[in-house]
Amino acid sequence: MTAQFDRIALIGIGLIGSSIAHDIKRLGLAHEVVVATRSAETLKRAEELQLGSRYTTSSAEAAENADLVIVSVPVGASESVAREIAGSVKPGAIVTDVGSTKASVIAQMQPHMPPHVHFIPGHPLAGTEKSGPDAGFPGLFEGRWCIFTPIAGTDEGALKKLRKFWESLGSKVDEMDADHHDKVLAIVSHLPHIIAYNIVGTADDLETVTESEVIKYSASGFRDFTRLAASDPTMWRDVCLHNKDAILEMLARFSEDLAYLQRAIRWGEGDKLFELFSRTRAIRRSIVQAGQDVDTPDFGRPHAQDTKTN
Amino acid sequence: MTAQFDRIALIGIGLIGSSIAHDIKRLGLAHEVVVATRSAETLKRAEELQLGSRYTTSSAEAAENADLVIVSVPVGASESVAREIAGSVKPGAIVTDVGSTKASVIAQMQPHMPPHVHFIPGHPLAGTEKSGPDAGFPGLFEGRWCIFTPIAGTDEGALKKLRKFWESLGSKVDEMDADHHDKVLAIVSHLPHIIAYNIVGTADDLETVTESEVIKYSASGFRDFTRLAASDPTMWRDVCLHNKDAILEMLARFSEDLAYLQRAIRWGEGDKLFELFSRTRAIRRSIVQAGQDVDTPDFGRPHAQDTKTN
Repeated sequence: MTAQFDRIALIGIGLIGSSIAHDIKRLGLAHEVVVATRSAETLKRAEELQLGSRYTTSSAEAAENADLVIVSVPVGASESVAREIAGSVKPGAIVTDVGSTKASVIAQMQPHMPPHVHFIPGHPLAGTEKSGPDAGFPGLFEGRWCIFTPIAGTDEGALKKLRKFWESLGSKVDEMDADHHDKVLAIVSHLPHIIAYNIVGTADDLETVTESEVIKYSASGFRDFTRLAASDPTMWRDVCLHNKDAILEMLARFSEDLAYLQRAIRWGEGDKLFELFSRTRAIRRSIVQAGQDVDTPDFGRPHAQDTKTN
Repeated sequence: MTAQFDRIALIGIGLIGSSIAHDIKRLGLAHEVVVATRSAETLKRAEELQLGSRYTTSSAEAAENADLVIVSVPVGASESVAREIAGSVKPGAIVTDVGSTKASVIAQMQPHMPPHVHFIPGHPLAGTEKSGPDAGFPGLFEGRWCIFTPIAGTDEGALKKLRKFWESLGSKVDEMDADHHDKVLAIVSHLPHIIAYNIVGTADDLETVTESEVIKYSASGFRDFTRLAASDPTMWRDVCLHNKDAILEMLARFSEDLAYLQRAIRWGEGDKLFELFSRTRAIRRSIVQAGQDVDTPDFGRPHAQDTKTN
């Protein structure tokens, strides 16, 4: 593939930033990649992994003369990054981000963007429970959705360029309004993570059942939740703080439904339980049919793996 | 391996019953395997899959002259099965089950067991989200725990024989009190399934986000819950009805913790969120270290599989 940008600045080099770096290199999408992160230690690791062609702890320096600036930091750090790069990002440059919440990121970054800079908020729906520059890998975005939430009046040419970039990484690009994005992600991503964190916390706090019992017998269901609950604490703290309204709305719905389910259990209303437990099965089928998950039982986990280590 | 029993009766031939059948055959643990299930259709399928040497829709007939009777039915059907086999099970025979709740199964079956029959309640912590005779496979119990909850005064020789049987299937056998089993399973298995069913139901009922959006973007977390929520509705209805007290206790703890978390989100208490989100990460590590889950990111799902089908 030929280079799409002369210089790309990657601000933040965690799971997402480093995966983008791997793909830019693999596909030759830029002549130069400048990696910036605040932590000297992380920067050193990024250099060891050869994720870029230049390395700096200054976002401002990284943004200088970059044609594309990709901000991959916890959403709570968006405003400070915007402030830092405001003075150095060049006219005509595209500035985008990968944050899991969009209305908040727009409110934090947009006011600081100089005129003639194309700020296009984005969100690749990709990742794993791992974090840091070592967690990234080429192909992470292959076949995954990337959602743009463009601000009214965004330059069509800039949009097209950024769309082409993500499509080169294998992504399917969608566009929607920032508020709708935040509602959609609140249910498909934020609520599931919060619920997973919560149930793992509950299990950890029990007196009647020991933590070692929870771990020992976790394969009977519990372990599925521990994967999401192992996600980056800083990232998820910021998501909770910056998509508050949508998350609280979904939490209210969830709790209301759970109270209904709890009551059905208390009063032995088997029909209500059976109705719900059958309905949810159909949704799993649709997800598998849509190619959004594997159909192999138990996510294809090896079924004799426990013996090796236990 | 040499046969451990002359005749084994498998009453119920779903995921668990059929997996046991595969292993008995594979390992030659019995001279004769009689398969019994109420549904003529399921029985026909079991015969097509050659899961046994004889087939009947009568549990009573299956139990006749069996040295080992394994009851693998939804826990709510335990009493009727116990009633049916009471008249035909021979003295000295071992009767066991695989139910996910134990106090209730004991209360349902024990009163019907004739003297000189060794009733040993058991629970193999194994399975997938699939169900029915086609879902079973050899090796399902490999490296997985099987918990016995023996009644006081149970014959040691019978216990030893049944333990040897499960160990032949690759299981690690534990023994505990039925009430403790029910509390442990309520948190490691029952609550996770109920929460998964609930969140999938909540997502299905939203007006602001369409079902097609939920399915399309499910890979960002939601899909993890849909696997558990695709489990057998009859089995899980019965679990909820027959482990009510322990489940309601765990649900109360979960909801209390969720209210605390919700309040922290509402009031922007980032430190409380960060503390929980960090603590849960350590539990994931322990589970992986204990060999109870794979360490490969995203359960080892293929990361480009979506493109094939989408």
